[in-house]
Amino acid sequence: MTSPVGLDRFWAVVPAGGAGTRLWPVSRADSPKFLHDLTGSGRTLIQATVDRLRELAGDRVLVVTGGAHADAVREQVGDLPRDLLLTEPSPRESMAAIGLAAAVLERREPEAIIGSFAADHVIGDQEAFSKAVVEAVEVAAKGDRLVTIGIEPTYPATGFGYIQMGPRLPGHRSARRVRQFVEKPNARRAASYLATGEFRWNAGMFVVRATTLLDLLARWHPDLAAGLREIAADPSLLADRWDGLEKIAIDHAVAEPAADEGLVAVVPGGFDWDDVGDFKSLSGLLPPGEGGMTVVGDPDQVRTIDAGGLVVSGSGRLVAVVGLDDVVIVETDDALLVTSRERAQDVKLVVQALTAEGRTDLV
Amino acid sequence: MTSPVGLDRFWAVVPAGGAGTRLWPVSRADSPKFLHDLTGSGRTLIQATVDRLRELAGDRVLVVTGGAHADAVREQVGDLPRDLLLTEPSPRESMAAIGLAAAVLERREPEAIIGSFAADHVIGDQEAFSKAVVEAVEVAAKGDRLVTIGIEPTYPATGFGYIQMGPRLPGHRSARRVRQFVEKPNARRAASYLATGEFRWNAGMFVVRATTLLDLLARWHPDLAAGLREIAADPSLLADRWDGLEKIAIDHAVAEPAADEGLVAVVPGGFDWDDVGDFKSLSGLLPPGEGGMTVVGDPDQVRTIDAGGLVVSGSGRLVAVVGLDDVVIVETDDALLVTSRERAQDVKLVVQALTAEGRTDLV
Repeated sequence: MTSPVGLDRFWAVVPAGGAGTRLWPVSRADSPKFLHDLTGSGRTLIQATVDRLRELAGDRVLVVTGGAHADAVREQVGDLPRDLLLTEPSPRESMAAIGLAAAVLERREPEAIIGSFAADHVIGDQEAFSKAVVEAVEVAAKGDRLVTIGIEPTYPATGFGYIQMGPRLPGHRSARRVRQFVEKPNARRAASYLATGEFRWNAGMFVVRATTLLDLLARWHPDLAAGLREIAADPSLLADRWDGLEKIAIDHAVAEPAADEGLVAVVPGGFDWDDVGDFKSLSGLLPPGEGGMTVVGDPDQVRTIDAGGLVVSGSGRLVAVVGLDDVVIVETDDALLVTSRERAQDVKLVVQALTAEGRTDLV
Repeated sequence: MTSPVGLDRFWAVVPAGGAGTRLWPVSRADSPKFLHDLTGSGRTLIQATVDRLRELAGDRVLVVTGGAHADAVREQVGDLPRDLLLTEPSPRESMAAIGLAAAVLERREPEAIIGSFAADHVIGDQEAFSKAVVEAVEVAAKGDRLVTIGIEPTYPATGFGYIQMGPRLPGHRSARRVRQFVEKPNARRAASYLATGEFRWNAGMFVVRATTLLDLLARWHPDLAAGLREIAADPSLLADRWDGLEKIAIDHAVAEPAADEGLVAVVPGGFDWDDVGDFKSLSGLLPPGEGGMTVVGDPDQVRTIDAGGLVVSGSGRLVAVVGLDDVVIVETDDALLVTSRERAQDVKLVVQALTAEGRTDLV
């Protein structure tokens, strides 16, 4: 059996950024979401992500993260050579982070195909994930397309963008053209998307030849593409040039305009995926414990009487909950959050309030 | 103007017992309710009680408490001579505690009139309180009666016993005979009590000549009365005899049978009174803070967004509450309670569960 097309030049890129403010107080500026084992699996989100990618790419995994988090990433991931950990001086959104990785890799291997996978998402089924990525790499290799992986929606989510699928791409197992990317919809629109059966969640996973990505970027954002290639050629320029780069997400910078020209493909992903955006989402990922209370942490430290929801127990204290359903309690050594699953999105307002007050010690 | 009758031989007795399990985790076995400043007033409950009584009785204040709490009481109250702090080897309910104080005081001063006032109640109006006590002392002195102070009910409470008042006692400002003591009623019965206008809350405050109390007790519980008098005569007997004494509340031991014989009077108390039985009760005692959230502790450590209820903040952590009304959050160094005002009574179930598991470190 021939080995899958393109896999021998496949590199996994892991952008490890994002503040995770809806997961405060677990997620902090100096210890963001991806550094935490939110699901109690024994591996942090970034460790699980890299584990999953090493199954496909071996040691061809490159991480991009903020300078402040580089040491923690190096310590958690292990076996990450210095040249495969790129540090951003400041957050500039996903295009610069992924683009820098692409620029570095194309110099190393001109035919490199990169796959970008967020450090802080949870994926359930390794086999189905690998299958989808392998097909995406094939599509990227054979047709030199930008390929995304589209998740089968399980409910009319309003928190993700969607991908509208087009006709089948001949010569591939399940890949289709992308008709268009659409923004996060309201509830009514999301329901209509699901009803058509043509829409999938955009999980932000892109597979594309490194050079193709940068060449596409150069069409619509020439300064950004040039800037990234210059930095890759002369890393000493990073500190000076980085903050001058355009701040934009890869979706807006490349995927959307490329889709408009029919250049993007989608591989349907038949696996569970969650971006763990907030505590409600986290709560849905985990099995409920006794009495309907999900516990992340030591269940022996939690006592519930007629209560349900989520307790993230991080300080060693005993947590007793009486008579509240849908409660979310997240306790750490220096901060306690009490809210409901329904209001989980609003946790970011706490971070905003504390930030406005200058409480950098807490955020 | 003559000085109030009996006040020169009045002694205030403060039984400082009670586990306060509905106020866990503030109240613990080794640090019960009365040792805490629950209302943030700057004085603990027992300090405030003794302050209030010293206004009337000067240094003629005697405290009865468990051996485990004696040091803390001595430290908090200050100026309490050794002979005015009686320690119970074990809790035997209120009759033994108050009776021991009476037995000790009658030996010191045969005409002593005692007034018993719980260490852990909150009283709003010093002047009205003093007025009621002064009248109660007069009634006890002149007619040698057992006198109780009956609180004007402000709502149909089901958590207190009630006193049904009888006709006026001639020669006194407001005192009445007690027709009967009744048990804690259900809601319907409580409402009917209030409708008659004849019922008052039993706050457990009794004023009576020490010897009269013990002589009454001897009629219905001769062994208990004799045992208490023997211990008062020879304190070395305390350790051996205490656990053998009958365990019974003063209400059942003396007040109820005495009322049946027409021997009890009640002075209506026109002052705010609260037994601070649980966090709902505590929450009602305090003014709500910003946004409807009452905070005991440092308000600067509490952030609320669309939330109301009570936060007792005791560990120095930041507490953020989002989108919950009626929530009760009580956090200490080693334990956190999250419940609602509505379920405040059930906090004792947590203590029961922890006790059953042998978690004596936490209760």
